[in-house]
Amino acid sequence: MSGAVTLVGAGPGDPDLLTVRAVRALERADVVLYDALCDPRVLELAPRAKRFYVGKRAGRPHVSQETIGKLLVRYARRGLAVVRLKAGDPFVFGRGGEEVEYVQSAGLSVEVVPGLTSAFAAPLGAGIPVTHREVSRGVVVVTAVPDDGWRSLVTAGVGAKLTWVFMMGVERRSTIARAFLDAGHDSSLGVALIFSASTANERVRRLTISELVRYELDAEERGLPAVLVVGDVTRMGVARAARDAFLFQNGGAA
Amino acid sequence: MSGAVTLVGAGPGDPDLLTVRAVRALERADVVLYDALCDPRVLELAPRAKRFYVGKRAGRPHVSQETIGKLLVRYARRGLAVVRLKAGDPFVFGRGGEEVEYVQSAGLSVEVVPGLTSAFAAPLGAGIPVTHREVSRGVVVVTAVPDDGWRSLVTAGVGAKLTWVFMMGVERRSTIARAFLDAGHDSSLGVALIFSASTANERVRRLTISELVRYELDAEERGLPAVLVVGDVTRMGVARAARDAFLFQNGGAA
Repeated sequence: MSGAVTLVGAGPGDPDLLTVRAVRALERADVVLYDALCDPRVLELAPRAKRFYVGKRAGRPHVSQETIGKLLVRYARRGLAVVRLKAGDPFVFGRGGEEVEYVQSAGLSVEVVPGLTSAFAAPLGAGIPVTHREVSRGVVVVTAVPDDGWRSLVTAGVGAKLTWVFMMGVERRSTIARAFLDAGHDSSLGVALIFSASTANERVRRLTISELVRYELDAEERGLPAVLVVGDVTRMGVARAARDAFLFQNGGAA
Repeated sequence: MSGAVTLVGAGPGDPDLLTVRAVRALERADVVLYDALCDPRVLELAPRAKRFYVGKRAGRPHVSQETIGKLLVRYARRGLAVVRLKAGDPFVFGRGGEEVEYVQSAGLSVEVVPGLTSAFAAPLGAGIPVTHREVSRGVVVVTAVPDDGWRSLVTAGVGAKLTWVFMMGVERRSTIARAFLDAGHDSSLGVALIFSASTANERVRRLTISELVRYELDAEERGLPAVLVVGDVTRMGVARAARDAFLFQNGGAA
């Protein structure tokens, strides 16, 4: 007799942006293991569950993947409904695949409930469509890890009308900006830094790729989770804000 | 006195995969304008609304963007709650930005409710994480439109450990496959064709990029909406299915 393990995508922050299936999984959970980036309001959707923080700080795991896997299996074997709650989507930069493999290797099945990735939900909340006629025909979603292949894509993407989303890319903003400039992208290429999307702390900074090279975070921006978006779709929200700050209005934000 | 226009992402198909905010918008809608790819079960979430089909067939608009914009504005000016329901996410290959601009240019505000894009939800339902340690470090989401810049990215991406999602890419599968092979990608590179994700008609075909060149759709696959995923993450679901077809189980599917 065993319980169930469900990996649940918590989306960008606002609990209204969870899927119906995710809300149900939380409501029936006995145990919830959650990450640093999970919004406290989302945890409130699981009032009767025991909650364990297994998050990461500064990219380093607070609790190892191995330990997380063991906890999932241990609680499921006790017959409990175990939810592993992950910010965004479990299968988009969420290491969800590794956790699925761990639980399956213990002979248990896993359900995965998708969530809105902040790669797309953060720009949307700032009024930025990641694709738009004559401005962007595709999206590249990467981290800016040093040895990754993103630089060669940036070079190949000159003139290609794309949107680039760098997950947690704010710390490496100078390196990213220089890579675009060195590759020959226009120095006026638009950039948006979106901090704490869909929460009360949400902040959007718009600038150009050449301004990004030397951009200093202010005190309120430091330490906030952020998505860095590069591409001329980032100018669209600007046009809107100039006309009327509330003309484009995304749901709960007002 | 005017009503409200809300662009709502309907997600990949299953109504349980809508966000809570999307469900609420549908429940209070007086009028719903919907697309060809919107699942009929999602429309049932708006029982009291007048529903208008404004979808597309074979890439050609059934109703022009201009006409859709006019309808949105006309109904909102009558004081009605108007929902523009779009498969997936309104701002990810959804032309939502154009509709927002149209409605705003008429002096009305617009709310946009995000949805799960099938670019990520379709692979997830097939057991495929779009990023995975040592297999994929990023995702490129494009259409395979002839003059788009996707070919140069494919060339730059050799060895880069990426996942490529081609929206509605099945019709151009041979061209896509040849582009990967010509660029020097390994002929054993994994591919998944995912048809009608998260619906009763869901089908997943796994093959290699060299097999994709001559792959003939069977009778059941023809005409279904589909996402084409290229990258070695597509092999992960295979491994699972070989061990136990139900070991990895995504929510409602069983």
